[in-house]
Amino acid sequence: MKIGILGLGLIGGSLGFDLRSLGHYILGVSRSELTCQQAIDIGSVDQASVDLQLLAASEVVFICTPIRFIVPQVEQLISHLPATTIITDVGSVKAPIVEAISPLWENFIGGHPMAGNTDVGIGAAQRNLFVNRPYVLTPVATTPSRAIAIVEEIVRSLGSIIYHCEPEQHDRAVSWISHLPVIVSASLIAACLSETTPEIAQLAQNFASSGFRDTSRVGGGNPELGVMMARYNRQALLNSLHQYRHSLDEFIHLIEQEKWEILEDKLKLNQQSRPNFVE
Amino acid sequence: MKIGILGLGLIGGSLGFDLRSLGHYILGVSRSELTCQQAIDIGSVDQASVDLQLLAASEVVFICTPIRFIVPQVEQLISHLPATTIITDVGSVKAPIVEAISPLWENFIGGHPMAGNTDVGIGAAQRNLFVNRPYVLTPVATTPSRAIAIVEEIVRSLGSIIYHCEPEQHDRAVSWISHLPVIVSASLIAACLSETTPEIAQLAQNFASSGFRDTSRVGGGNPELGVMMARYNRQALLNSLHQYRHSLDEFIHLIEQEKWEILEDKLKLNQQSRPNFVE
Repeated sequence: MKIGILGLGLIGGSLGFDLRSLGHYILGVSRSELTCQQAIDIGSVDQASVDLQLLAASEVVFICTPIRFIVPQVEQLISHLPATTIITDVGSVKAPIVEAISPLWENFIGGHPMAGNTDVGIGAAQRNLFVNRPYVLTPVATTPSRAIAIVEEIVRSLGSIIYHCEPEQHDRAVSWISHLPVIVSASLIAACLSETTPEIAQLAQNFASSGFRDTSRVGGGNPELGVMMARYNRQALLNSLHQYRHSLDEFIHLIEQEKWEILEDKLKLNQQSRPNFVE
Repeated sequence: MKIGILGLGLIGGSLGFDLRSLGHYILGVSRSELTCQQAIDIGSVDQASVDLQLLAASEVVFICTPIRFIVPQVEQLISHLPATTIITDVGSVKAPIVEAISPLWENFIGGHPMAGNTDVGIGAAQRNLFVNRPYVLTPVATTPSRAIAIVEEIVRSLGSIIYHCEPEQHDRAVSWISHLPVIVSASLIAACLSETTPEIAQLAQNFASSGFRDTSRVGGGNPELGVMMARYNRQALLNSLHQYRHSLDEFIHLIEQEKWEILEDKLKLNQQSRPNFVE
């Protein structure tokens, strides 16, 4: 199958590697000539260009740009495509993207491979990035079943675990486990930076260890990514944040009131429940 | 030197390994006969007993029990010791311990090796646990300089990085980077468990990945340890929690008001500042 990839970064480049290995012919488009050449050199694509016209021959196109470019790029792309071409995206927020693209292109299905890491760019592309990782597909009532079946087959061939849900369900679920942790963790760093006694601030920096490292990791990550998830998943994130604030206040209250048994019960419930999310 | 270790868990057992390797003669005391035998079998101590009397011959005694037993155990121990014996503890909170023990025993110096991990018990003891890790000593005005010098020499021989500060400074610093993260992280798990729509709750569990794993780790850890740090460092932790709540509210406000540039600036500051705490 001829498969197009628009946006040759970590996700696009990694998709190219695996899909080529599976025997597909990969057409890649990037805004950067240099990235196009790199993608060819490392074997992530068969052909690459800065011109969207290259994708005209694709049966399926994966949109792998940063989230804010997805809709504008699709708007430009569709003038080059026959109506049968299937478009799918890999954006980490689904409702606003599906809402914007569905009226423009019938053969569109939203997707989200949950396989990123902190690296970016074609240089970070790797083989088998999607194996045993969740890959969420968010078809809507109007999505043609043929488009769903074809994208699902490709995704399954990557070794991913496929989930289907509504775009809004996806966004609410990721607001809990992916976007809320960013703000929770960012607030931790900001709070530690607010210590005004220089000796204490210095000791805190000296003493920080694995607990601080892990809890602060996503809050000290890519600022642009943090803003994008807040912008595009704003309402679900705010709902999660208000609920989080309520949970935090409960813990503060228990400590203020010295309700140690209730605190221990809540921490036990946490310890028992966390393995339902991650091993 | 004859060195006593009261409490043969991860820290006590690991101390025993290293101090024996350095040529000291190690006397260990545990409440459990089985632990005493294990400590001898693995070579962490030279002699072990459930009887505090064994420690009478020690020149220095390390108190390595869980934090709530430190003061009661010292109260019992001192009737067995000559006044020249130096006592030090390894508790993760310092002010209440130093306040309680200083009037009882002149040759006491509080300490805190920041080298724990999530494992517990003599079976988790390991060699070189303290190498390149911070080891905080909290002498007060009345601590004899000889006691400081001897404990410092032992700690230096473990390969630790020694810090001196006041007990209250220690407690404020660890409240930021060690105790606050536990409640921040615990509130995250509690918030995610509060989702009332079963489909969303299930998807959140399915989608949880490295971001959730890291941010939730310390909040899903040992409940007893969580309660102890809250009880013994209550005031400093509450100060940190109230400041954290303020930082969180600022982030919520920025997202509500869609102040994306300010949000990005704050996330950039986080990204730049985090390496001051951890690499």
